[in-house]
Amino acid sequence: MKVLVLGGDGFCGWPTSLHLSDIGHDVIVVDNLSRRAIDLELEVDSLTPIRPMGERIRVWKELTGKDIGFVNLDLAEEYDRFAQLLIDEQPDAIVHFGEQRAAPYSMRSTKAKRYTIDNNVRGAHNVLAAIVESGKDIALVHLGTMGVYGYGWSGSAPIPEGYLTVKVPTPDGDIEREILHPANPGSVYHLTKTLDQLLFAFYAKNDNLRITDLHQGIVWGTQTPQTALDERLINRFDYDGDYGTVLNRFLMQAAIGHPLTVHGTGGQTRAFIHIRDTVRCIQIALENPPAAGDQVKVFNQVTETYRVRELAELISSLTGVDVANLPNPRKEAAENDLNVSRDKFQALGLNPTLLSEGLLEESRDIAQKYAGRADTTKIIARSVWNKGMETSPDLVK
Amino acid sequence: MKVLVLGGDGFCGWPTSLHLSDIGHDVIVVDNLSRRAIDLELEVDSLTPIRPMGERIRVWKELTGKDIGFVNLDLAEEYDRFAQLLIDEQPDAIVHFGEQRAAPYSMRSTKAKRYTIDNNVRGAHNVLAAIVESGKDIALVHLGTMGVYGYGWSGSAPIPEGYLTVKVPTPDGDIEREILHPANPGSVYHLTKTLDQLLFAFYAKNDNLRITDLHQGIVWGTQTPQTALDERLINRFDYDGDYGTVLNRFLMQAAIGHPLTVHGTGGQTRAFIHIRDTVRCIQIALENPPAAGDQVKVFNQVTETYRVRELAELISSLTGVDVANLPNPRKEAAENDLNVSRDKFQALGLNPTLLSEGLLEESRDIAQKYAGRADTTKIIARSVWNKGMETSPDLVK
Repeated sequence: MKVLVLGGDGFCGWPTSLHLSDIGHDVIVVDNLSRRAIDLELEVDSLTPIRPMGERIRVWKELTGKDIGFVNLDLAEEYDRFAQLLIDEQPDAIVHFGEQRAAPYSMRSTKAKRYTIDNNVRGAHNVLAAIVESGKDIALVHLGTMGVYGYGWSGSAPIPEGYLTVKVPTPDGDIEREILHPANPGSVYHLTKTLDQLLFAFYAKNDNLRITDLHQGIVWGTQTPQTALDERLINRFDYDGDYGTVLNRFLMQAAIGHPLTVHGTGGQTRAFIHIRDTVRCIQIALENPPAAGDQVKVFNQVTETYRVRELAELISSLTGVDVANLPNPRKEAAENDLNVSRDKFQALGLNPTLLSEGLLEESRDIAQKYAGRADTTKIIARSVWNKGMETSPDLVK
Repeated sequence: MKVLVLGGDGFCGWPTSLHLSDIGHDVIVVDNLSRRAIDLELEVDSLTPIRPMGERIRVWKELTGKDIGFVNLDLAEEYDRFAQLLIDEQPDAIVHFGEQRAAPYSMRSTKAKRYTIDNNVRGAHNVLAAIVESGKDIALVHLGTMGVYGYGWSGSAPIPEGYLTVKVPTPDGDIEREILHPANPGSVYHLTKTLDQLLFAFYAKNDNLRITDLHQGIVWGTQTPQTALDERLINRFDYDGDYGTVLNRFLMQAAIGHPLTVHGTGGQTRAFIHIRDTVRCIQIALENPPAAGDQVKVFNQVTETYRVRELAELISSLTGVDVANLPNPRKEAAENDLNVSRDKFQALGLNPTLLSEGLLEESRDIAQKYAGRADTTKIIARSVWNKGMETSPDLVK
């Protein structure tokens, strides 16, 4: 099928584009390179030496003979060009990764909050409006986040895949209703994904759009079989205080002998998935779209859960690097349990890469190999949830 | 107190500004005159002869000696000016009417859908971000809509004021949780009000903003004691297919002998409130803000419910004008019941104007008096919820 990958230059988008191309789909990347522009703004760089989009695509063609298209386009600002692209290309499906995706960045400043809202909500709505305007039956797969659910809300019940059946008291007794799981976002970034859910629900109901929303956990790992084919295809690896997610950050810290930075008690339980499984999940979602008229199909795209301090202890015990407990820049519960339903992808054949298998490879092939590229002044998280919250000084000079 | 009224030039905003000024508050209207600009776009005009903002304010000063300020500013596009306005004026409260408020207009075209999302969501978020950035304790009162709840979802239970207590099944038995009432918006306009709810919940939680969200029914009537003081203070009255709401539209149709336009069976039950009560409700909401750290305070701002066909029959029996059943341009249930909790405003002293009292005055003083200003080619609703839906030709040439 022909697939547009929006945000196809990013950490999840690039390996997904290669995977979909590899299995025979006709892939066009749509990206305004905003993730690279934010690197410039933050004065950081991927630990891995990522190449320009043109080179990435040329190398892929040399190695496999397969073409990937590329359109440099801003989804939020260039509606007319995007709508015309749908007419010109007539894609069967769209995978939408094209949103600002870092919680700390989204809380960094008023400007970053406003950018995250404007970019993500307008972009998502433009995609929906353009599909309706095209009159074509284009399936949409969107990357959500586990963070839409909040944490620890539903007692011992596992977090369902999108929808929750509750009992509503009425004068005639309780009635059962299926509702979208109540939203409890922890940052402006997460907030945008809860807004997206309502956009999707409306367009599925009013216009019969076929939409899948994937509530993903924290992605770890860097390479997929395709990105590992040639160093010029390498995927990005973020370790900075805004974009570096917890497990990859620990691996990189261990590689350079930097203390492992745990915020607060590290009692936060989070869900994880390897990037190799992300790309497989997207494939499965594309192959199993909802029917027109169905509600939005929601999957929880996670394979394991860990407490942050458990991860730190694990990496510390493997490497001998110390753990540093720093002030928590987020407004969140110090400790939470997390019990996530993840039956749907398993039923559809996902066979996950677990932490216990992939850690060593990741540490050796990425964190240690590229450790020399690290800027240690960028490691500590400095974006805070409320003005005046405490942060840590640099731990390594 | 000092109050900024965002959207203070509109149908609800103008009489609210006068009412708040009348009872002694220091009022500044912030408006980009977008409602008047949309009149130009749609080639329609208020049935009543509204005057420019400068004249309105001058006349109010002449009659009462009271000053109302005016800042022409686009909330969605001019963040920096708005943030500076909060610093310069140090308001105690903000009343936010500054959103595109017509469901049919929001479904009229891709452009109108996109404008409604962009204007309403960015505007609301800019207000929240600017309050946080100001560092001041500024209470926010926002106009929501009954349409956030959808219709007929909760069986015989009345629609609560914002929050619903449900039972969530868990392995350890049912647990009770209070949730934001699930959203079921019927148009892109209503969708934006459900997005606003999530924005407000986040900023109340993360930044302790004090926010009140008023889920208003359909406003009818035109004048308040203040707008009736002088014809140059008159409030707007919309009768066109996009902005004309049902009861006022029927009154105007009766005044010119146009059949009363009922969409579908007219079995839709809707909630109503007189404009005189809207302005009183805003006053009550301003006088009873939530505390910092509280969740968003939600009121249902409605006083009565009627089926559309009941209203048509009532007006028809009073005036002898026929009822015309036209195709319904909306995607909605043909018939619904509506049972709305509205205890909070009653407990705080609201003594409403009911349909049975105000109809005759409205018909005589507005619809009949200004009937000669009507353009009969603008009466039929032509904005449809899906491409190709049927509409009616003009009924009167």
